[in-house]
Amino acid sequence: MSMSKEKLYGGIEAGGTKFVCAVARGPGQIVDEIRFKTTTPEETLGRAIQFFQPFVDSAELRAVGVGAFGPLDLNPKSPTYGFVTATPKPGWSNTDVLGTLQQALNINIALDMDVNTAALGEYLWGASKGCDPSLYLTVGTGIGGGYIVNGRPLIGLLNLEMGHVRIPHTFELDPFPGNCPFHGDCFEGLASGPAVEKRLGLAGAMIPEDDPFWNIEADYIASALMNYVLTLSPKKIILGGGVMQRDFLFSKVRRRVRELLNGYVSSKSLLENIDDYILPPGLGNQAGSLGARALAMQIDETKNNHRV
Amino acid sequence: MSMSKEKLYGGIEAGGTKFVCAVARGPGQIVDEIRFKTTTPEETLGRAIQFFQPFVDSAELRAVGVGAFGPLDLNPKSPTYGFVTATPKPGWSNTDVLGTLQQALNINIALDMDVNTAALGEYLWGASKGCDPSLYLTVGTGIGGGYIVNGRPLIGLLNLEMGHVRIPHTFELDPFPGNCPFHGDCFEGLASGPAVEKRLGLAGAMIPEDDPFWNIEADYIASALMNYVLTLSPKKIILGGGVMQRDFLFSKVRRRVRELLNGYVSSKSLLENIDDYILPPGLGNQAGSLGARALAMQIDETKNNHRV
Repeated sequence: MSMSKEKLYGGIEAGGTKFVCAVARGPGQIVDEIRFKTTTPEETLGRAIQFFQPFVDSAELRAVGVGAFGPLDLNPKSPTYGFVTATPKPGWSNTDVLGTLQQALNINIALDMDVNTAALGEYLWGASKGCDPSLYLTVGTGIGGGYIVNGRPLIGLLNLEMGHVRIPHTFELDPFPGNCPFHGDCFEGLASGPAVEKRLGLAGAMIPEDDPFWNIEADYIASALMNYVLTLSPKKIILGGGVMQRDFLFSKVRRRVRELLNGYVSSKSLLENIDDYILPPGLGNQAGSLGARALAMQIDETKNNHRV
Repeated sequence: MSMSKEKLYGGIEAGGTKFVCAVARGPGQIVDEIRFKTTTPEETLGRAIQFFQPFVDSAELRAVGVGAFGPLDLNPKSPTYGFVTATPKPGWSNTDVLGTLQQALNINIALDMDVNTAALGEYLWGASKGCDPSLYLTVGTGIGGGYIVNGRPLIGLLNLEMGHVRIPHTFELDPFPGNCPFHGDCFEGLASGPAVEKRLGLAGAMIPEDDPFWNIEADYIASALMNYVLTLSPKKIILGGGVMQRDFLFSKVRRRVRELLNGYVSSKSLLENIDDYILPPGLGNQAGSLGARALAMQIDETKNNHRV
């Protein structure tokens, strides 16, 4: 082995509000980091390129992983592979994120949904460490999930959109019709941050803990989790996102999941240790950034598309 | 390469009503086959052992795969690994299926749920051939699904029990409370064969095609399929089981899945080619038997537990 250049990996947490770019040695050893507001695609991606360029020039940067807001086209056979597709975010519809970065930096770039990189980060270094399969769900402005199976985020036919599953909705208990423009009262339409706020005219953060609404919210989250358990069989479930900042929700959700399953599954994790089965993120708000760098490390190892 | 003994693989379709045992060269080249009624575990497993013994003695049989009715304990770390656990089938609760076969035949035996071996058979040689991930769902006496990902049936924390997912149920349209002893109106409680029969006092096979109930049934199946699509992202969905013997249900289900998704996913398979996305089994009632032999071939290749 020659005394070669240091191996560095880059990560971009490409959010709809802000971008976080970092270069690190291992997952945690950050060499340089920058944060800036998400503006136009040209300006925003331009700043990211500018940040990484010196590390490319010194031949130290092996690859960059990107965890981005969506919707994304992640089908390698598609002519718009690597694009942000039809997004409400002004100016970003049909932006070639992957191609723009790849052409400018000319190194391996891996792109995935932000919820998938968060799932990967938690699986590698966080609360679901080593749990394969495992699930990361964010309940915030939207609801979305990333599912790790065989060490990688699952894609399949299309990006997972598990926030839009259909769950029972009793109008007598909760007359709110749901606010999903596509499905009305799907899970996201009933339980996302904006749905909570629209229903009560108050942000979730301001609603008192003893408001009976929280039992309804916990029931929706628990219904979806029950379905994920029976379908995806994760060994851990991580719940992130703004709505889950209200800590007391965790015990309500856990209790309701157990009630709904009603002893049907014979799993100790679920029946006795549910407090250690449904958990907040272990990496806090670092999961996305760490996961993006993990993606870079994976693509470097396979020398190819990280999904192969 | 030496002119060694012929390589043969065995399969057992271990149903609650009948057992089908077969020995074959490739998947289709059957050398010998036997069918018999499922009676006591001793008698039934004894007959299976008797059938396979000569092929073990001649050193031709490499492995046997078993697709069994459940519930099964498939956790290799459990003291009751390979057992049929608490089943309503008289005499079969706590039967060590895997151990009994392994001790008697002393060759590699692989055990999985019948729905998983059917999924595997369809994935290798049937209607979902080469589609990874893919989903096989049976809607019959019970409702259950097998999910193939990375070429193998998914297990995870526990056996998949996707028949018991919660889906919307409008009591005004369908006052039937559901007949699942655990969950009442879960998917299986609303849409399985016995639920259909209990509701209308008539077996599904006898209910006329123009009965408005079939639209309700199609809505339940479509709701569950929509959730599986958004969560598991299969490249094909195969629908088997007694209820799906009524061919006209396929077009009703496909139409309703498209309505429910409401243009949310941008997948050609779903939007334009749904007739080729939701399909009956390609192997008919051979899927289970072929899948059991596929399991035997997989375990022979890995020389180990087929889940590793």
